[in-house]
Amino acid sequence: MNIAIVGIGLIGGSIAIRLKETNFAEKVIGVDKSEINQKKALQMNLVDEIMDLHEAIATSKIIILTTPVDAIMQLTPYILDRITDQIIIDMGSTKINILQQIADHPKRGRYVAAHPMAGTEYSGPEAAVPNLFKGKNMVYVEAFKSDEDAFDLADALTDLLEMKSLFMNAEEHDMHTAYVSHISHLTSFALALTVLEKEKSQGRIFELAGSGFESTVRLAKSSPEMWTPIFKQNRENVLEVLEEHIKQLQKLHDKLEKEDYEGLYKLIKKSNKIKRIIK
Amino acid sequence: MNIAIVGIGLIGGSIAIRLKETNFAEKVIGVDKSEINQKKALQMNLVDEIMDLHEAIATSKIIILTTPVDAIMQLTPYILDRITDQIIIDMGSTKINILQQIADHPKRGRYVAAHPMAGTEYSGPEAAVPNLFKGKNMVYVEAFKSDEDAFDLADALTDLLEMKSLFMNAEEHDMHTAYVSHISHLTSFALALTVLEKEKSQGRIFELAGSGFESTVRLAKSSPEMWTPIFKQNRENVLEVLEEHIKQLQKLHDKLEKEDYEGLYKLIKKSNKIKRIIK
Repeated sequence: MNIAIVGIGLIGGSIAIRLKETNFAEKVIGVDKSEINQKKALQMNLVDEIMDLHEAIATSKIIILTTPVDAIMQLTPYILDRITDQIIIDMGSTKINILQQIADHPKRGRYVAAHPMAGTEYSGPEAAVPNLFKGKNMVYVEAFKSDEDAFDLADALTDLLEMKSLFMNAEEHDMHTAYVSHISHLTSFALALTVLEKEKSQGRIFELAGSGFESTVRLAKSSPEMWTPIFKQNRENVLEVLEEHIKQLQKLHDKLEKEDYEGLYKLIKKSNKIKRIIK
Repeated sequence: MNIAIVGIGLIGGSIAIRLKETNFAEKVIGVDKSEINQKKALQMNLVDEIMDLHEAIATSKIIILTTPVDAIMQLTPYILDRITDQIIIDMGSTKINILQQIADHPKRGRYVAAHPMAGTEYSGPEAAVPNLFKGKNMVYVEAFKSDEDAFDLADALTDLLEMKSLFMNAEEHDMHTAYVSHISHLTSFALALTVLEKEKSQGRIFELAGSGFESTVRLAKSSPEMWTPIFKQNRENVLEVLEEHIKQLQKLHDKLEKEDYEGLYKLIKKSNKIKRIIK
């Protein structure tokens, strides 16, 4: 069978690498609106062929969507209208809106909502890397609404990527990702903006940047094409966590401003409980 | 010559490892108020001997201070009062206050203010690692106020640690570290508090945590004993950067709240300029 990947960037390209390593697909077909990405994907041998979307739908058994989530919102119903028994796997980072949009589609069963919890701060075909997914979680959302054969094939791909399967409902998924993924990006963007602003008057400021700074700011290299739509689609949850986060920063600020060092110590000590989660 | 290290934790212990590797010191002497740390430092063979502070002053040529900065504020004048030609190297993360405090001390020349821009989120003797400093920057502050022989010996240690030397005044140093080190810790502490709070009602929230989350939150494992005094000593700069950072987060929040996605896109795009700094 042929597998089409729509959006050959970090995620799509890394899936393509694994498909080519394993010969899971007869042909890996690339679809991308950017001609530059099409060329790179061929040059890097990520895909066997570049096709337009209609051709790819007609010749592929599985259509994997790895574009930004606003494009997934448009592509999914469009493709569902045009398939017979093919399968669509949506790899996007937000799920509530897309699932609402296609809830009553006659081909709903051919669609599988899956979110691989893996990535880096880089984008484009050149960001594709082997083993990006190994050992990470694949989150299925509303998996019970997919046809059994469609889910089984998606799950075979999850196995191929050496990922673990998790199941959630859409509300849980979108809220949890806001708290453990989307907010991390926002704090990094804000931190980069803060320090870049200061650099204007203090040229040497980055000379002292060490690994701690790098670690908290590296996500600020992430693509606005990918992230603006994620924040749009997950707006309410993201606003909630952002407000919570600002509140926590304000609390630390107020303790310091009032010179309540015992209170500041206690907050830091409390935050140390994160050790339980990340080793 | 003997070298005493006062405070055998991440920084002190990692210096000790290098001293022992290179035989730069005849004996490495450990001073630590914690008996547990004393025992660990001996067990781990980080130091040759544990002494109390007075004994260490009497028998060492160099006294390296790697305690929390509030302890450095107390120890430095106390030790300066008791030395003849020994050298004190202060490895703390803040410099304005300590330099003011000892500005007129008759032994001022025996003191070298140096800040190694290296570290991890771990603390205690067991956090000591080889090559922690290799390739990193050692920032000297007001180096011109140290006696030439004192500075030269400190700089020989910097070479031994395979670090590069930088020179700054105290105001620059404390402001720059607020922007590229202290704030990173505050954002991590706040992020950990935000998500830990949410976990109480949403038990599974950390299941989706990936490498992005880990990278932005790992500094929240840092010790409150070390960090509360840093924020205290660098209070004004830290408040300034914290207010700036909250402002930037609020800007991102407002764009999203008003559904100004073009504005949000532009802010993210602007933050991407951090690519120029971190590769």
